[in-house]
Amino acid sequence: MNSKTSHCKIVDCTIRDGGLVNNWDFSVEFVQHLYKSLNDAGVDYMEIGYKNSPKLLKGAESAGPWRFLDDEFLRTVIPNKGTTKLSALVDVGRVDENDILPRSESLLDLIRVACYAKDVDKGLELVKLFSDRGYETTLNIMALSNVMENQLLEAFELINDSVVDVVYIVDSYGSLKPNDVSYLTEKFRKYLPNKRLGAHMHNNLQLAFANTLIAAEGGVELLDSSVYGMGRAAGNCNTELLVSQLQNPRYKTRPVLDMIEKYMIPLREKEEWGYIIPYMITGILDEHPRSAMALRDSEDKDKAVDFYDRMTTPELSHSK
Amino acid sequence: MNSKTSHCKIVDCTIRDGGLVNNWDFSVEFVQHLYKSLNDAGVDYMEIGYKNSPKLLKGAESAGPWRFLDDEFLRTVIPNKGTTKLSALVDVGRVDENDILPRSESLLDLIRVACYAKDVDKGLELVKLFSDRGYETTLNIMALSNVMENQLLEAFELINDSVVDVVYIVDSYGSLKPNDVSYLTEKFRKYLPNKRLGAHMHNNLQLAFANTLIAAEGGVELLDSSVYGMGRAAGNCNTELLVSQLQNPRYKTRPVLDMIEKYMIPLREKEEWGYIIPYMITGILDEHPRSAMALRDSEDKDKAVDFYDRMTTPELSHSK
Repeated sequence: MNSKTSHCKIVDCTIRDGGLVNNWDFSVEFVQHLYKSLNDAGVDYMEIGYKNSPKLLKGAESAGPWRFLDDEFLRTVIPNKGTTKLSALVDVGRVDENDILPRSESLLDLIRVACYAKDVDKGLELVKLFSDRGYETTLNIMALSNVMENQLLEAFELINDSVVDVVYIVDSYGSLKPNDVSYLTEKFRKYLPNKRLGAHMHNNLQLAFANTLIAAEGGVELLDSSVYGMGRAAGNCNTELLVSQLQNPRYKTRPVLDMIEKYMIPLREKEEWGYIIPYMITGILDEHPRSAMALRDSEDKDKAVDFYDRMTTPELSHSK
Repeated sequence: MNSKTSHCKIVDCTIRDGGLVNNWDFSVEFVQHLYKSLNDAGVDYMEIGYKNSPKLLKGAESAGPWRFLDDEFLRTVIPNKGTTKLSALVDVGRVDENDILPRSESLLDLIRVACYAKDVDKGLELVKLFSDRGYETTLNIMALSNVMENQLLEAFELINDSVVDVVYIVDSYGSLKPNDVSYLTEKFRKYLPNKRLGAHMHNNLQLAFANTLIAAEGGVELLDSSVYGMGRAAGNCNTELLVSQLQNPRYKTRPVLDMIEKYMIPLREKEEWGYIIPYMITGILDEHPRSAMALRDSEDKDKAVDFYDRMTTPELSHSK
């Protein structure tokens, strides 16, 4: 237990990030039970999907409805909203302005914009749009482990001049160590003194929960997680660990265990995520997991040594 | 990478702690391949089993040979010893003095004595015996999360007056958080200024690797781990993560990946360890995993909510 974490809020990303595992093939019952569980557990936000436009993405037809949230549909899913707020993620270049209702007409409370450091200007333009329509906003800077200092300092200047509420430290490749997280948290606090901070960690090196705790103790407020860690590749920080360990009487563990028992254990039998060796390898190499995901989809899925050799031989490596 | 970890040594416990999972049913080929892999990877010690006496333990007949190491047998298993040293663990009250050859006649280099804080006097008596016969020694104080300050300070006094080389911080229940590990490491350094330190962490809250790194950065030298995390219940810090992340050119990742691919992935299909919800529950409750192990052996193995209710209702809890 840690009294240094009483300022924190949890943002559960099971549907949004977990959808990257199963192409958002979650039933309405699943999503409704998750919402009830998170609400009972005192979780602050549920990220219920993406708010990108299907017109601006390939392969949109096959995806479940959480890939392109529709406000009217959302009202049928969550007819009785509790205290857990709803969030959606958007990507730069994939948003149709006409899809975005004013917040007063939508169930969504928070819109988060994901972008790379080099696109922070475009990200902040979207943030402005959502902010003007009444939403809470965050800017999630991805792949921080691959950003050079000068680029980051430029991004900070733009962010300080913007309306964004919260800025996220995102460990896209799951390669950050506790030391790195302390360093980044301190840097973000120093250069963004008037912004609130968030953290989104991946579990390639089994460090997602530890890194999230360390960010929290360093003053980060919004903590991303997902139930049973469900998320792309190695997955995320586990919601059940956060509700059990954050120092706040609002959080209850039991409703999250109920969700795990009823839905996540059976789902994990069919879908794969978590600490799996090829994802550990991309984590130690500080690379995007896409090559490991391709391996896990092939017959050679357990050939860890070949994969390691390929990834560490410069002329053979396809990544980056 | 962290230059604060170049003083560290790895003690791989796959056979000894992993044996608690499969009753030490490892083939000679398995153990030989593990030794070769660890030696190639630059791992400093391999703990190849227990050196308790079968006369002093029930159920001894059914266990594999790594449960009660015999020096003659060991020579047939490791005919060509490399640079990786060999270690064995003993428990207070289960050692027959007559089983212990002088180190010059044994393949073993290190004998580690596990005990609870209240038995540190008995543990140190055993340490003296092994030290007199020429072995390196450690004292592993178990279940530190359940020890009161006054008891610990008494133990430190006895330890300071003893010949023991290394004193271990053992998180038996996997309940320590990074903050707790920093606190304990600082305390051990302060009160045991002339002893080297070790750390043995469990993975109930997915914190074994992070806690081991944090102990290492705090000055702890001997780091316990096992390949693919194999160990009782939630298992241990993963050897593959340590060799990949400790700052020392001696360590190689590839040989450990080879062991995982050839032996550990198939073994994990048959035997169970790791982050499994009942073990997470005993971890957050700071309890011995025995009740969760019993649950996992029963038909109700996935009934997490019932188990949680039972463990958190004082009049129903069987543990402690």
